[in-house]
Amino acid sequence: MDKLSQWLEGVGIPHIRTREPGGTPLGEKIRDLLLDPAHAEMNEETEVLLYTASRAQLAAQIISPALKEGKWVLSDRYIDATLAYQGYGRGMDLQALRRIQDWATKGLWPHRTVLLDCSIQVAFQRMQGREGEPDRMEQEKESFHQKVREGYLELAKGEPQRFIVLNAANPLDQVLEEFRKKFWEPLSRKMQ
Amino acid sequence: MDKLSQWLEGVGIPHIRTREPGGTPLGEKIRDLLLDPAHAEMNEETEVLLYTASRAQLAAQIISPALKEGKWVLSDRYIDATLAYQGYGRGMDLQALRRIQDWATKGLWPHRTVLLDCSIQVAFQRMQGREGEPDRMEQEKESFHQKVREGYLELAKGEPQRFIVLNAANPLDQVLEEFRKKFWEPLSRKMQ
Repeated sequence: MDKLSQWLEGVGIPHIRTREPGGTPLGEKIRDLLLDPAHAEMNEETEVLLYTASRAQLAAQIISPALKEGKWVLSDRYIDATLAYQGYGRGMDLQALRRIQDWATKGLWPHRTVLLDCSIQVAFQRMQGREGEPDRMEQEKESFHQKVREGYLELAKGEPQRFIVLNAANPLDQVLEEFRKKFWEPLSRKMQ
Repeated sequence: MDKLSQWLEGVGIPHIRTREPGGTPLGEKIRDLLLDPAHAEMNEETEVLLYTASRAQLAAQIISPALKEGKWVLSDRYIDATLAYQGYGRGMDLQALRRIQDWATKGLWPHRTVLLDCSIQVAFQRMQGREGEPDRMEQEKESFHQKVREGYLELAKGEPQRFIVLNAANPLDQVLEEFRKKFWEPLSRKMQ
């Protein structure tokens, strides 16, 4: 995201950066509820509704106004996270989840999505190298994360125009090079 | 609710009492977010999703298990509150709201609903007699509360088998008498 932000700046495209869950004062409080390992009793529908509540607030308060001003919006996670984690990961009905997302964001789906894909083994190794305790989602077992990964790849296969899949197991400079080639170069050509 | 609880105890019907938003540790934290007057920027979809998140947790963690054990569950507010406040009060699409409620509670709709109805003037007078600041919902203007009241009455008219409407403008002992006649007596006869 740093690199993309840099590229956009370089060509003078106004943009903002955000993340979810969170990205608004209310959303950050919802994020705290969601990621707190103390909430192990959280029901799966509750989980979806809390993620979606944070997203609805972000879409209405931040993303929509920015798009209306002609800005690009770069967000760390969005709708696909719910489809991958709760749909594929927890086995919840995908059609119901899509319908709720559509309603909650007033139809504001992402235009392009960059998927940083790597094996669960690589992801777990990187998490171990990090400081701090894993959050409630990270504490899920390996088989869950495996289903989430496969879900993301399935979503990408279903919408190849929207998704760019990068091999995130590579060193950072290679990932950025792949990103430049697959996303930035075709886009720059179009904008010329 | 105190009276009903007393009657049920009198005839030996096991029951629990709860309320929403809230009723679970997680739900009470969601309640704090919902009622905090600081969150004036809350988007209407976010509001629905937070109320529904609290409700989904209550249904799964408290109501469903209690019903399975053969207990009655008395809840201060439930699904109808979202239909009345967000559907009728804020003018949101009722069909979409019903669908989300159905999904969130796994189809757990209330069996009987007691509506304590009074004019907005009476309700506002009673609020003034109370200690503490009004919460975020109570701070809404009179025309909003008027629409909510009409919404509740509309819901009651649509499902006369489920709803019992009591005139809450009357003194408490009269309200209880009306409740006994309309709800408790026919029920006691059925149970004999």
